Amino acid sequence: ELIGAATKLLTKPFLAGRSVLVTAGPTRESWDPIRFLSNRSSGKMGYALAAAAAEAGAQVTLISGPVALETPLGVHRIQVESAQQMCDAMLVQVAAMDILIACAAVADYRPVKQATQKIKKTHQGLTLELERTPDIVEQLSNLADKPFIVGFAAETEHLETNASRKLKHKGLDMIAANWVREGQGFEVDDNALTVLWHGGKVDLPRTSKTQLARTFIKLIAEHYHAKGPA
Amino acid sequence: ELIGAATKLLTKPFLAGRSVLVTAGPTRESWDPIRFLSNRSSGKMGYALAAAAAEAGAQVTLISGPVALETPLGVHRIQVESAQQMCDAMLVQVAAMDILIACAAVADYRPVKQATQKIKKTHQGLTLELERTPDIVEQLSNLADKPFIVGFAAETEHLETNASRKLKHKGLDMIAANWVREGQGFEVDDNALTVLWHGGKVDLPRTSKTQLARTFIKLIAEHYHAKGPA
Repeated sequence: ELIGAATKLLTKPFLAGRSVLVTAGPTRESWDPIRFLSNRSSGKMGYALAAAAAEAGAQVTLISGPVALETPLGVHRIQVESAQQMCDAMLVQVAAMDILIACAAVADYRPVKQATQKIKKTHQGLTLELERTPDIVEQLSNLADKPFIVGFAAETEHLETNASRKLKHKGLDMIAANWVREGQGFEVDDNALTVLWHGGKVDLPRTSKTQLARTFIKLIAEHYHAKGPA
Repeated sequence: ELIGAATKLLTKPFLAGRSVLVTAGPTRESWDPIRFLSNRSSGKMGYALAAAAAEAGAQVTLISGPVALETPLGVHRIQVESAQQMCDAMLVQVAAMDILIACAAVADYRPVKQATQKIKKTHQGLTLELERTPDIVEQLSNLADKPFIVGFAAETEHLETNASRKLKHKGLDMIAANWVREGQGFEVDDNALTVLWHGGKVDLPRTSKTQLARTFIKLIAEHYHAKGPA
């Protein structure tokens, strides 16, 4: 508590007066009332970024998938479950935002059909037909009055190549590339990021997600201010 | 704390000297290093049963899927993730057990193939081939020296019919049938159970999972003692 208070006093509120939208956690795509598809995002990185942006003086809205984390102090949290709900909530919020940090691990695929009753098991196998979910970040980057958009790329291989392609293809301002492997990325307290923007990149070395988030929020603010407010 | 201590003093340790194995929570079936299939079990009912069995004087082992719950006092917890791991852990533990309470919502289906790298998304849909997981409770009920086995049936329709069929078909001693619907069953603190055994049944009305677990553990102990130790 004391350290938190001291940090606040020593930190210049470099995002004062700015609105920041952070998305965090996984989404769940229902298959029947009991079963769902999801992914290993713990939400910790997104929650740490929301906390760090609030520390930096921003008004922070956090759209969160299902996670077992407390809402950071001073942050307005909106709870969602599916990719569609995440998408809808972002569309409602985004117009008022200066910066969007899309850290949620939104499901890329969802079941084509959702059963209204529990599917009874049989002795046979089963085929689950999946369809793509809407790519909300790509949609938002096409808006005329879009915020400064920071994306994430969680990868198990070809990290920078994949991240660089997403940066260009999705019309992002910055992207944080994130190895997902044993003991790093998802479900752990530490992380490292490679941050790319148009014409540059920097490696943020492995540390606690809390500390990493503070460093990354400073970097985002620098690039945001350099670009000039919309 | 005081109420907990008072409850212990007033409760006869009717499971003293008995070994109880409880399974709890969902399982996760990986599809690639990031994505998985799971279900909405919070683990709360199973954890409450483990706590109530320990209160009743039993030596309790809890095999748990991924949940956001603390291990109850005095309970030995074994952490697993997939249905296969749950099955393996149960096979190791079961020989030493007097009573098995299989409360975990073990996945019935898992992907036939697990990708070792994250599956890159395309613009097209995708088909996920699923196969049945081993039905460990059914396997255990075929053991010569099997424990007293209590199963669970979480249903969205035909509750008693489905539960009654599972009781007979899986060779269980008792089964707790559990409606899963908005505000009941999974992901909530309250629950109600219909408990069936060969030749009888009782409705345990809706209350907190903690209280319900204490009532149910007493009922299990009565039937276990009536049957006579193996």
